[in-house]
Amino acid sequence: MTASKKASKSGFLVDAMQHSKPERARFLEWRKGGIDCTHITLSIWEDARDTLKVIGRWNRMFEQNADLIARAESVADIERIAKSGRTAVILGFQNTSPFEDDIELVEIFHKLGVRIVQLTYNIQNNVANGCWEDHDGGISKVFGRNVIAEMNRLGMMVDVSHCNERTCFEAIELSATPVAITHANPGEFVGTDIELKRRTKSTALIKAMAKRKGVIGLSMYPRMMKGGSDASLKTFCDMICWTVDLVGVDHVGFGTDFYTGWPETEIVWWRAGRFARQSPVAISPKFAEWPTWFRSPADFPKAVEGLTKRGFNSDEMAKLLGGNWMRMFKRTWAPVK
Amino acid sequence: MTASKKASKSGFLVDAMQHSKPERARFLEWRKGGIDCTHITLSIWEDARDTLKVIGRWNRMFEQNADLIARAESVADIERIAKSGRTAVILGFQNTSPFEDDIELVEIFHKLGVRIVQLTYNIQNNVANGCWEDHDGGISKVFGRNVIAEMNRLGMMVDVSHCNERTCFEAIELSATPVAITHANPGEFVGTDIELKRRTKSTALIKAMAKRKGVIGLSMYPRMMKGGSDASLKTFCDMICWTVDLVGVDHVGFGTDFYTGWPETEIVWWRAGRFARQSPVAISPKFAEWPTWFRSPADFPKAVEGLTKRGFNSDEMAKLLGGNWMRMFKRTWAPVK
Repeated sequence: MTASKKASKSGFLVDAMQHSKPERARFLEWRKGGIDCTHITLSIWEDARDTLKVIGRWNRMFEQNADLIARAESVADIERIAKSGRTAVILGFQNTSPFEDDIELVEIFHKLGVRIVQLTYNIQNNVANGCWEDHDGGISKVFGRNVIAEMNRLGMMVDVSHCNERTCFEAIELSATPVAITHANPGEFVGTDIELKRRTKSTALIKAMAKRKGVIGLSMYPRMMKGGSDASLKTFCDMICWTVDLVGVDHVGFGTDFYTGWPETEIVWWRAGRFARQSPVAISPKFAEWPTWFRSPADFPKAVEGLTKRGFNSDEMAKLLGGNWMRMFKRTWAPVK
Repeated sequence: MTASKKASKSGFLVDAMQHSKPERARFLEWRKGGIDCTHITLSIWEDARDTLKVIGRWNRMFEQNADLIARAESVADIERIAKSGRTAVILGFQNTSPFEDDIELVEIFHKLGVRIVQLTYNIQNNVANGCWEDHDGGISKVFGRNVIAEMNRLGMMVDVSHCNERTCFEAIELSATPVAITHANPGEFVGTDIELKRRTKSTALIKAMAKRKGVIGLSMYPRMMKGGSDASLKTFCDMICWTVDLVGVDHVGFGTDFYTGWPETEIVWWRAGRFARQSPVAISPKFAEWPTWFRSPADFPKAVEGLTKRGFNSDEMAKLLGGNWMRMFKRTWAPVK
């Protein structure tokens, strides 16, 4: 229970995106880092049947590591699990691929506990357009709009982290509840390096998202961070302060995008899925090295400590650490009638 | 609410098997017949992905007919739904085909609300052996035993209606909770006509099932009924009395196996699935005609009235009409630690 006490000391902590290979070593790091709640990925390109298999794997993780983690489907679940000294795990998709071409699958995956869904992963799909596309496509007229309406009806959070700019703006417009960017950094702060640029978000977009009460989760993922693997804790905290200055303290949180534990072949799957036989982008096929001050989520206290020194008061810190995400979950998981 | 009042007058009524094409006309018949609870089939041969599609169709049925029906996942659900003057619908499989070769799928379908699973539909599968097989095979050593243990762990009722004799005996032995025959008739009462014989149950088996606190649901389906389509209400009531005399009033209920509304091509699917291109059995490819006194579940009051005249007291009638099934649901849906 030491880890749990540490968590409550620094405030309720939510990391809005992690995608490590699920295994006990990771859950121990979560406890060490004082993470009360995180959001994990069931699908990158997986279809419905593939996704059932991944849910099966997580069911066993929950059973075998019930001392460290539990599945959360509601804000009450998150609070109860965190109070018991464990990390609440939210199931999510980084793609609408599990919905295939079938609007009925949204309700089925909601029933299975999925609460956060990104509209597409990097490329164009049935629903939306991704940040790797060159044309200015947005959300599809039939399936895309229906999926968003269905997610609103059931109570699922719309995530646009890997979507292209137009898709993000359209999602903000179409969704009845606020839209999240669970894991992406502000382009203007990070710089215009072509390799980093596509996965970052414009100032105009971040403002539009915040205006509709959304939240952006900032990441120390080297490939979308100023300085890459050499990015300092100071730079990360500067980025948080820059974003808070832009849109206010109610719209910023953590979304580390941390991953580890996968074989390097996994990166080909993430880049190409079944759409191509090799990566469509000229990014290194090696995993990026995480910065020295954030080798794993066990290092979260360092990030929190760095931020504490920036002069936020305790209310502001509580919002940045997890309060903003908890507000988003409460709002977006309530079914829209 | 008239239908609902009728139901409470004659006692709490459960029909442990119906497999009509889902549509509003059926639900209206259920209300007219005073059916408080019934069990419907999501899968005959459907695999996991196919079954999600069928669940999607039922989700829309529940939404569009919320004045008549609702999905039940617990005994408390059934009681609440029946009290509101609607029919509680239990989701079930007539085959373990949705589990494919993946033990994890049992928990996933439990989470989706499935509460009754027949081990196989007529033929040999990964789990068990069916009543159309000629050899004396039983439950498979690895997957079959694991599926039963997993169903017990989660709280799902094991159904052996279409299984062969050996599978039935083994299931009764292996399952930690009582085993159900949701829809089959006693062979000794029905007679030995070869066409009817395979789908009926032996006296020894019915006794073994009852000894372990199971319940058999008796059916007026012409193809396993003495007299076929000409079977009289008297014959049906005789069969109930015969079975009660055999194993006592605690182990008998209704399981009509009623179906209607399907195109006749559906019968080829039921008989052959994807295993064969035509029916493996020499049974008429036409739908059987239901007896005149049971044209649909709206005629249930006639069956109930017929039974009432046989001299059962009110406690006994309550057990036969639905009490025995409710006891079974309570017992088999409680997770086994």
